[in-house]
Amino acid sequence: MSFSPLIQQLITALRCLPSVGPKSAQRMAFHLLERDSEGALALSEILQKAVAEVGHCRQCRTLSEHELCEICKSESRDRSILCVLESPVDVLAIEQTGGYNGLYFVLSGHLSPIDGIGPEDLGIDKLLDYIHATEINEIILATNPTVEGEATAHFIAAQVKELGIKVTRIAHGVPVGGELEFVDGGTLAHAMAGRRSLL
Amino acid sequence: MSFSPLIQQLITALRCLPSVGPKSAQRMAFHLLERDSEGALALSEILQKAVAEVGHCRQCRTLSEHELCEICKSESRDRSILCVLESPVDVLAIEQTGGYNGLYFVLSGHLSPIDGIGPEDLGIDKLLDYIHATEINEIILATNPTVEGEATAHFIAAQVKELGIKVTRIAHGVPVGGELEFVDGGTLAHAMAGRRSLL
Ligand SMILES: [Zn+2]
Ligand SMILES: [Zn+2]
Repeated sequence: MSFSPLIQQLITALRCLPSVGPKSAQRMAFHLLERDSEGALALSEILQKAVAEVGHCRQCRTLSEHELCEICKSESRDRSILCVLESPVDVLAIEQTGGYNGLYFVLSGHLSPIDGIGPEDLGIDKLLDYIHATEINEIILATNPTVEGEATAHFIAAQVKELGIKVTRIAHGVPVGGELEFVDGGTLAHAMAGRRSLL
Repeated sequence: MSFSPLIQQLITALRCLPSVGPKSAQRMAFHLLERDSEGALALSEILQKAVAEVGHCRQCRTLSEHELCEICKSESRDRSILCVLESPVDVLAIEQTGGYNGLYFVLSGHLSPIDGIGPEDLGIDKLLDYIHATEINEIILATNPTVEGEATAHFIAAQVKELGIKVTRIAHGVPVGGELEFVDGGTLAHAMAGRRSLL
């Protein structure tokens, strides 16, 4: 069916949301315009504000508008264990399993020599500084189970070898070639629990 | 898990979208902030603009920022048949079946004497004016298959009885007590095809 231009633009804009297909976007647009214009305006305002103000935690580099994120600030997290991930979305995936209570460090993706992306581009130098500055007993390398994610994990493992810290890799329970963010919580919790030592 | 205040507000605001639960809202927020801030800003802008400018078609009263909606303007729609619905969301549901090519008239809900909602509140007077002013051969009453929707359909049928126009009600194929907007397209198409004469 055809919609008036503004409605069509709204439907198209809603497609930027993950897992929202054309029909869902149409329903969302009609719902907002007919039944929840207040909700739509509140969403509009917070989208703008959040994009402008949310940056990255200076310690773990996940999303936060504060210098330190809620996880890094928390008194109840286990500061002896650090989980290294490729993206803030992966922090969310691990947190949603409810089975991990340590800290995080978020890389800017994975090593990709073909694209000229080396260790500094990912922030591995900052990760090493962080590890040196704190009292971490275990580093869980939870980069994606892809070729690049594996290479990134092994690169980091080699870098911290000399420090005598336990370095583990999440278990293969996560499907090889998959993306962490799309793995269901149960599988991910299992993979965290079944992690094995790399060093 | 706990998020910084702006991220939490964004997650909460995203819950105004239909069928978006807490975990989906979290993923949407992280996706927008980490990977698609341009998409987020575009969505913010169009939400505001659409809420401000989209109103209702003066003829059929569905959503449109123009005086006449795309359906009422269209040269290819069958102007001899009119489908009467409770809400613009229902127009969307019928359009998505792809099986209807007539025009629409959208009421403002259904009759509800308990809440003091009578025929004028729904725009039934305008519906009658519209029917009188045009050359409609058939009116399909597609109000929701609820007690109130049935009562509304029968009220309208009684009003147009004298005009000698064919008046039909969508078939019970739609589940009794259900809401039209949540019925799958196949069932709805079937219900439209199996409509029976009320007069
Ligand atoms: Zn942090
Ligand atoms: Zn119209």
